[in-house]
Amino acid sequence: MTKSKHARPTLKDIARDVGVHVSTISRALNPNNTHAVSPDLMDEIRRVSARRGYKPNAAAYLLRTNRSRTIGVVVPDITDPVFPPIIRGIEDALARHGYVAILINTDGDPRRQAQAVETLKPRGIDGLILASVLRHDLDTARLISGIPAVTVSRRSDNVGFSSVVHDEHDGFCRVLTHLASLGHRAIATIAGPQTISTGHNRYSSYVRFIKEFDLLERPIAAFARAFNEMEGERCAEELLLARQPFTAVACANDRLAIGAVTAFRRHGVECPRDVSITGFNDMPLADRLSPALTTVRVQHYKAGTEAADLIVDTIENGTDKPRHIVLPVELIVRASTRSLTQANAAARNHTKEEQP
Amino acid sequence: MTKSKHARPTLKDIARDVGVHVSTISRALNPNNTHAVSPDLMDEIRRVSARRGYKPNAAAYLLRTNRSRTIGVVVPDITDPVFPPIIRGIEDALARHGYVAILINTDGDPRRQAQAVETLKPRGIDGLILASVLRHDLDTARLISGIPAVTVSRRSDNVGFSSVVHDEHDGFCRVLTHLASLGHRAIATIAGPQTISTGHNRYSSYVRFIKEFDLLERPIAAFARAFNEMEGERCAEELLLARQPFTAVACANDRLAIGAVTAFRRHGVECPRDVSITGFNDMPLADRLSPALTTVRVQHYKAGTEAADLIVDTIENGTDKPRHIVLPVELIVRASTRSLTQANAAARNHTKEEQP
Repeated sequence: MTKSKHARPTLKDIARDVGVHVSTISRALNPNNTHAVSPDLMDEIRRVSARRGYKPNAAAYLLRTNRSRTIGVVVPDITDPVFPPIIRGIEDALARHGYVAILINTDGDPRRQAQAVETLKPRGIDGLILASVLRHDLDTARLISGIPAVTVSRRSDNVGFSSVVHDEHDGFCRVLTHLASLGHRAIATIAGPQTISTGHNRYSSYVRFIKEFDLLERPIAAFARAFNEMEGERCAEELLLARQPFTAVACANDRLAIGAVTAFRRHGVECPRDVSITGFNDMPLADRLSPALTTVRVQHYKAGTEAADLIVDTIENGTDKPRHIVLPVELIVRASTRSLTQANAAARNHTKEEQP
Repeated sequence: MTKSKHARPTLKDIARDVGVHVSTISRALNPNNTHAVSPDLMDEIRRVSARRGYKPNAAAYLLRTNRSRTIGVVVPDITDPVFPPIIRGIEDALARHGYVAILINTDGDPRRQAQAVETLKPRGIDGLILASVLRHDLDTARLISGIPAVTVSRRSDNVGFSSVVHDEHDGFCRVLTHLASLGHRAIATIAGPQTISTGHNRYSSYVRFIKEFDLLERPIAAFARAFNEMEGERCAEELLLARQPFTAVACANDRLAIGAVTAFRRHGVECPRDVSITGFNDMPLADRLSPALTTVRVQHYKAGTEAADLIVDTIENGTDKPRHIVLPVELIVRASTRSLTQANAAARNHTKEEQP
């Protein structure tokens, strides 16, 4: 498909340039065999191949093996800063296995997810990585039947996909323990969409924790319809309206927390002076916000590489049984949470200002 | 490729459900003809088609027309918050034309860009949108010869691609006029990579402006190797080391500005108290940073939709002559710039602290 005035270089040419036997090059360039030579030698071979314009014949390979070495990656919202590092991880790990990623963005719309799968299938993908799956996603399961698939960041309840997720429960409990240790008792939550495993799991952890630690009789919660700043603002105002006192708000992700900070500020409720706010994800720039956000660090990039390793292993070794990887998380304490015990401000009732 | 226990629905089935003549459905589902029916009716037809599982035969369409209705989109760094809104714009506009986007991320590496094009070509793409192009990008031009291509956000100097860019010069001049109007005379710059049109144009505007307005005898500049926070930090420290006094730094993009704020703070030079700092792009969250960033708002989403419209027009109407769209920009003044005339702090020499 590409035109060149020069003779097409052969494996022998590459071998001569690198200074190794042609069988070494052959082994190195066999995408099923990328670990067969040292990374340094591999780099050198890649460099020489690129310089000489050597191209393994992709179309011929596809015909011979019926494999495209292409993975479709479906993300729900490319404008969410959480996904780019995951995508980067997927791409880097796939490249190590000799695969490439093609991406489709669905806007969190299940119909667009179905369309995405329909778009990718006839283009000869070997597998799918879905960052967009809902908890009950039978349509997608039906659509992709026969294609290996891994979900990343999220998990589907009743579908046999392999998955790479973070330890949501541990993360949310660390947040709540941190807030409780600062003297907060009336801890509200801005929960994420309950149709998504991350939203569901983080809210379940919240409910379990406030009971176990005897903090509140019942949840003080607002439910976001999407994991974004606008919904964070709306939910923060809903909490202010609810007339239940709270001194802290544990949000289901960073974007909801950013929205909450903005909305509270609009009502004269400053974070962390009047209310402590936490996020989840430690998304890029979370440390440079005003105030810098206390949050749970999840391993975006690592989740991506693990998902890529898992899909390649499923494709190449044909393991049918779903596997589930749960990555550990870390609490990152910054300026958006504040101790109530140091200050003499006991639990303040932020709703008072709205009362007549 | 998909299995179904049900009989495959026909156009007639869809027509009956929607309550229109079958020819209307046929017109509506012809991807060359998406504007043939009203958007409301189109929505209804899509809804019914989706519910009944009607699938226009993509493979047959591809064979008949030799068109895949797929556009390859190549981005240099998916973790840069500037690109997701551009991608969203591209996808939305392509969807209106009945096209889909598949994305490839190149990490700003020209070799990866070449690989991306090689990956996309055999998958039957009708056109390319490149957000990753360098000023002198003959390799890419050679590779994609024969495929319609549009560059977005950036422009190639000597290659016949159509392009959608922002008015860099106007933007940077607004920034510098703003700083000068606040009393700043010693205005340094953190310039972007000069191999990229945005980096080159913004630095040229800086040089032109400081001469025209007789501000400085020669530029006070540090050059970033990439448009990211780390390079912003490095360049800020380079400026501090250079022992030339400055009271403001105009950065070639927001990420460089964010890095500069951090590095200066590490040296006790607070923004905006001791130094005014500006960005470029008005990327997501620029308004929620500490301090909120004075910057130039460019129309990311609009650039995406324009690029998509341009590529579809090029494909469908076969216009060969490159067209160039320049989108207007807007200055957004926030907390990172401060007037020197109000305070009695005259131009301060930030390098003094480093002097013996």
